[in-house]
Amino acid sequence: MAYENLEDLVEAVRAGRPRAVGRMISLVENESPALREAMRALAPSTGRAQVIGLTGSPGVGKSTTTTALVAALRARGQRVGVLAVDPSSPYSGGALLGDRVRMQAHALDGEVFIRSMATRGHLGGLSVAAPQALRVFDAAGCDTVVVETVGVGQSEVEIVDAADTTVVLLAPGMGDGIQAAKAGILEIGDVFVVNKSDRDGAQALIRELRNMIALGDYSGHRWKPPIVPTVASQGQGIDDLLAALDRHRAAGEQTGEWQRRRLRRARAEVEALALAMVRATFTLGGADGVEALAEAVRDGQLDPYTAADRVVADR
Amino acid sequence: MAYENLEDLVEAVRAGRPRAVGRMISLVENESPALREAMRALAPSTGRAQVIGLTGSPGVGKSTTTTALVAALRARGQRVGVLAVDPSSPYSGGALLGDRVRMQAHALDGEVFIRSMATRGHLGGLSVAAPQALRVFDAAGCDTVVVETVGVGQSEVEIVDAADTTVVLLAPGMGDGIQAAKAGILEIGDVFVVNKSDRDGAQALIRELRNMIALGDYSGHRWKPPIVPTVASQGQGIDDLLAALDRHRAAGEQTGEWQRRRLRRARAEVEALALAMVRATFTLGGADGVEALAEAVRDGQLDPYTAADRVVADR
Repeated sequence: MAYENLEDLVEAVRAGRPRAVGRMISLVENESPALREAMRALAPSTGRAQVIGLTGSPGVGKSTTTTALVAALRARGQRVGVLAVDPSSPYSGGALLGDRVRMQAHALDGEVFIRSMATRGHLGGLSVAAPQALRVFDAAGCDTVVVETVGVGQSEVEIVDAADTTVVLLAPGMGDGIQAAKAGILEIGDVFVVNKSDRDGAQALIRELRNMIALGDYSGHRWKPPIVPTVASQGQGIDDLLAALDRHRAAGEQTGEWQRRRLRRARAEVEALALAMVRATFTLGGADGVEALAEAVRDGQLDPYTAADRVVADR
Repeated sequence: MAYENLEDLVEAVRAGRPRAVGRMISLVENESPALREAMRALAPSTGRAQVIGLTGSPGVGKSTTTTALVAALRARGQRVGVLAVDPSSPYSGGALLGDRVRMQAHALDGEVFIRSMATRGHLGGLSVAAPQALRVFDAAGCDTVVVETVGVGQSEVEIVDAADTTVVLLAPGMGDGIQAAKAGILEIGDVFVVNKSDRDGAQALIRELRNMIALGDYSGHRWKPPIVPTVASQGQGIDDLLAALDRHRAAGEQTGEWQRRRLRRARAEVEALALAMVRATFTLGGADGVEALAEAVRDGQLDPYTAADRVVADR
């Protein structure tokens, strides 16, 4: 460990040192017992970062859009964090904070923190790990954090849903993928991006989106999601996207929706942590008991509700 | 309600009456308080159905493959259930048990039960609702139940992962989608299907898959996943798929893996239910408390771990 003690590590995270940020997120991923103390120390430094959730089906250009967005935010002088909850995300710029990212950094930018996170394998899953990672980025002084997800699974949707602003990416010519996307993620978009807008079908997609959005209820100053056409690979439309993000923030701060959403996010974070703690007690010392109950359920001797009652009572 | 009391409904489910099965799954979706009693009554009738998890990216042909598989199982005289945890799944045959399925039934087949399930909106989510729905199909005398998911999200992967046999569908020419699929779902496949195998790139995909599978450890009678080429839209290769499913079952029963996996599924089911019960107590009468804690976390006055401790202690 490069840091003598936790206090030094916390201090280095606050100072925005990439290695310390990476190390701290590793503690999150490994569910280190030291996290409690670290998060207690970091809490007062949090709450500043704007969290942008960016989601869409594979192939719509999420990584390209994220990269262009990060460049635009850097041009504003911001410190930026990227949390890629997407197994297909390849990143090459910025300070890579983990070994899961496929490409090595060529141009290290100490003001851009990038971390990939696997979607499986953690106790409590993403719903516990992702918010803690965001918290680390936040405490490290990131002005904006982009969370990129594939956006099909439930826990992923929950994560982007809780962002300050959720950007849903679509692209023309995705066939079935778009159909799936429409059913699941349209309702969570604060801003819609039609990427690859120079391709055939982009105008039709924009029209279709516009018609769907028009069905919504926008009374009482409720936010009406704009549609931003982009060609992210050429940086086209990214300024418009930034402007839309700014407008969404300004509108949310005015109506109070911004703070309400942050409350919802904090609540989801606390609940997920509490559930993970309770879940840990299901197996601590009582693993045999749970196993015996599961065996009875498997064999039809016991129903799962009665078994669950006993698990809760016995822990 | 078409049934006078719960006892009648349970009896009708056991008799395999489509309306009763649909009604019971609605109770699951609505988290009806009557579920406890119903599941207790149904438990002795469960454990017979073979659960096939079928997953893959949008566009690989999951619904077409499921439809062809159901037809083949019907030809064997089986009663079959389909649980579509996939917003893009359109079904037209069989007894449609819910209103979420887009198309109306044209040819009602009383021996095929089909139900779509939304991936959001339930307390405890899919991890609670899906196993209970499987349980209803099972008790209704289904010989086989196919669970179809998009297979990107964590909870979805958990569901197919817990199937008796997990079928991972791929197709040539899916671009980025395949990359994502490779990273996430390859490790869970007991059988790989390369659908649309008459298209360009199918042979290359099969070779690539074969090479990846070859890297695994198959000592101690461990199952080596076969690759089955299909053209599901024409029914080609479906018999080979059925044969692979049969071989997987026979091998699993011989090694004991079949029963171990069913134990794992029962355990996951019980744990998910227990967690949902505990979660309900977080808000029962204590919602204000959780809200105040979340507010303190949002404002950086409290860290989420300390808040979670209090939620667990106070419930």
